[in-house]
Amino acid sequence: MHDQTDERVAVVAASMTQFGERDGWVRDLLAEAGQACLADAGVSGDAVDHLYVSNMASGEFEGQTGIPNALAHDLGAVPAYTARIDQTSSSGGAGIYAAWQSVASGASDCTLLVGGEKMTHRTTAEATDVIASLTHPVEYKHGVTLPSFAGLTARAYLKTYDAPRESLADVAVKNHANGVDNPNAQFREAVDRETVLESPIVADPLRLYDFCPITDGSAALLLVPESRAAEFADEYAVISGVAGATDTHVVHERADPTTMGAVVDSGAAAYEMADRDPEAVDVAELHDMFTILEVLQFEDLGFAEKGEGWRAAADGRTARDGDLPVNTSGGLKSKGHPLGASGVAQAVEIYEQVLGEAGPRQVDADVGLACNVGGFGNCVTTTILEAAR
Amino acid sequence: MHDQTDERVAVVAASMTQFGERDGWVRDLLAEAGQACLADAGVSGDAVDHLYVSNMASGEFEGQTGIPNALAHDLGAVPAYTARIDQTSSSGGAGIYAAWQSVASGASDCTLLVGGEKMTHRTTAEATDVIASLTHPVEYKHGVTLPSFAGLTARAYLKTYDAPRESLADVAVKNHANGVDNPNAQFREAVDRETVLESPIVADPLRLYDFCPITDGSAALLLVPESRAAEFADEYAVISGVAGATDTHVVHERADPTTMGAVVDSGAAAYEMADRDPEAVDVAELHDMFTILEVLQFEDLGFAEKGEGWRAAADGRTARDGDLPVNTSGGLKSKGHPLGASGVAQAVEIYEQVLGEAGPRQVDADVGLACNVGGFGNCVTTTILEAAR
Repeated sequence: MHDQTDERVAVVAASMTQFGERDGWVRDLLAEAGQACLADAGVSGDAVDHLYVSNMASGEFEGQTGIPNALAHDLGAVPAYTARIDQTSSSGGAGIYAAWQSVASGASDCTLLVGGEKMTHRTTAEATDVIASLTHPVEYKHGVTLPSFAGLTARAYLKTYDAPRESLADVAVKNHANGVDNPNAQFREAVDRETVLESPIVADPLRLYDFCPITDGSAALLLVPESRAAEFADEYAVISGVAGATDTHVVHERADPTTMGAVVDSGAAAYEMADRDPEAVDVAELHDMFTILEVLQFEDLGFAEKGEGWRAAADGRTARDGDLPVNTSGGLKSKGHPLGASGVAQAVEIYEQVLGEAGPRQVDADVGLACNVGGFGNCVTTTILEAAR
Repeated sequence: MHDQTDERVAVVAASMTQFGERDGWVRDLLAEAGQACLADAGVSGDAVDHLYVSNMASGEFEGQTGIPNALAHDLGAVPAYTARIDQTSSSGGAGIYAAWQSVASGASDCTLLVGGEKMTHRTTAEATDVIASLTHPVEYKHGVTLPSFAGLTARAYLKTYDAPRESLADVAVKNHANGVDNPNAQFREAVDRETVLESPIVADPLRLYDFCPITDGSAALLLVPESRAAEFADEYAVISGVAGATDTHVVHERADPTTMGAVVDSGAAAYEMADRDPEAVDVAELHDMFTILEVLQFEDLGFAEKGEGWRAAADGRTARDGDLPVNTSGGLKSKGHPLGASGVAQAVEIYEQVLGEAGPRQVDADVGLACNVGGFGNCVTTTILEAAR
């Protein structure tokens, strides 16, 4: 432990497991990602003094709790400090913030963050019900699950801004195209507009291909004070900005259904901390749990004027060869959405992009942003990663 | 948000609800403690920029998740950042550590921590099974719940150190005596040795009165950088030390069943951070989920030699008029043990003791220590609070 510090926080290693339908327990997935991350840095578990696990619901999904302690065991990291960080679907982003705090506060010299969730052994109805338990009880009793909110919001957005419904399909088409080149993605098949537009209705006007799947998987990051980064990696990234915010628990209390206040607030705080503006961002991972969410975040993070975000995918601006590639990983849409892993995996993609390690998905990027959304914008964490130069 | 800082972290307000069998949901209890804490500081929810909730299992106990977002709503703290911190029975201590980090890292100017759990609406068997889900699957399948570990450990301790079984009863008698003077305690009745020793066997040699109860309740602390403390309170405490550690997930892998390694490690780190030794501690709250645990922690934190801790309660050393009063609040034993609240409530008692606000329970104290144990010593957080002078 060192004194409270003004040092920047470096990310020196990153990993993710294959996402999809996986065997085993969440602790197996966490161990797989954690071991891969340590191997990436060339260290073993005893190098870790703080171990955070991003996970929403291992107790509900698997009847197992205390998984950080299990992971410390599996990684050989005992007696490292451990805790679980839960912020529902944005547990991964909250884990990044916790890990950043542990290093920035001077408490930790080496923090491993591992996010993960095991969901596919439950039916879609069971998994949806676990997720819906985060909604306000009154809305929950009326059956308004997150997909319902997405349908209502999409309808409001398309009407308010006279946007074509096809523009949402373009988000799915783009992200599936990116997922083809991500070997860890759950779905690696390109889809066309027609496939999206003719898929079964889930929450009108949204259809099956507007939604991310149920997924198992894990992802990990290793964080250290910048002065130690060279011990772990030749090239590394720094977390220049990280911040979170909440919006109303009752979704229908929000003044404008087409604006996600917690995205606006967390984004603004992350930009301020990083001393960056939206124009500085070269690549972004946005939380496309539903296609409409990518459009809203694109606007609420300042990449487009309100009501204009739908044009980005349609015009190719957010494609890999566009001026601001979004979800080069395939996004939640094609990569999959294991709740506690997703925010960490977003940062893994940004880390690889800014360090030039993204292979066939590589774009020209020094500064990247990840926006991880919990609930229906109930709680959001935004992280800005930059290549250390 | 201010820059990363060398400032100390101040605790400027504290509260707890009545512990016991309570109506309502955990979110009601969290809101009650949170509101009381804000009122203690004379501020409203909009003063809070970071809101942490210590809670193990609202999803398993109540089918509700996302409770930090619900609490932000109930306290008027939106858009404050929120997250849930889970470290099983030591979620409260982990929450203190998270809240300390949020201020010490410079991320927060005002952090509210609220711990809570709602358990009594479930049967004791159901609640015990939720808690047992933190054990290693192999031990779990063999039926070794936490009470079983306590019985086995008590037997090993009494035999190894030739300690009288009555010495464990003395812990229960002392803590119940303290609880009589705590209006928020679940049990406010004194018990005598005979009552403890003749109560029903739960896990031989331990009997019913060696165990803490199932409890509903919540507790809260307000943390700010020391430079802002005067805005909130005339007198305040500082967190001079806070640290955590894990021990093996598989309990039977531990070399010495009578030593809790994570207590030793987290205590040593907290002492080092505070630049204090055990002799400096004037009052302590130890995690007496089972009477034997108070004895082990008393030794593992350096208050007695190994094998001598059993004498402390028997000799009156840990009584209110002893040289190191332990569990002046009544401890988990009589105050109750709402999982996520307990570690926070321990710190509430220490805060009141070092500031001279403990009423009939007041002892002479400037420096206090709280040790919060998760699982069967699987993960532990130790906090040292001092009156700011």
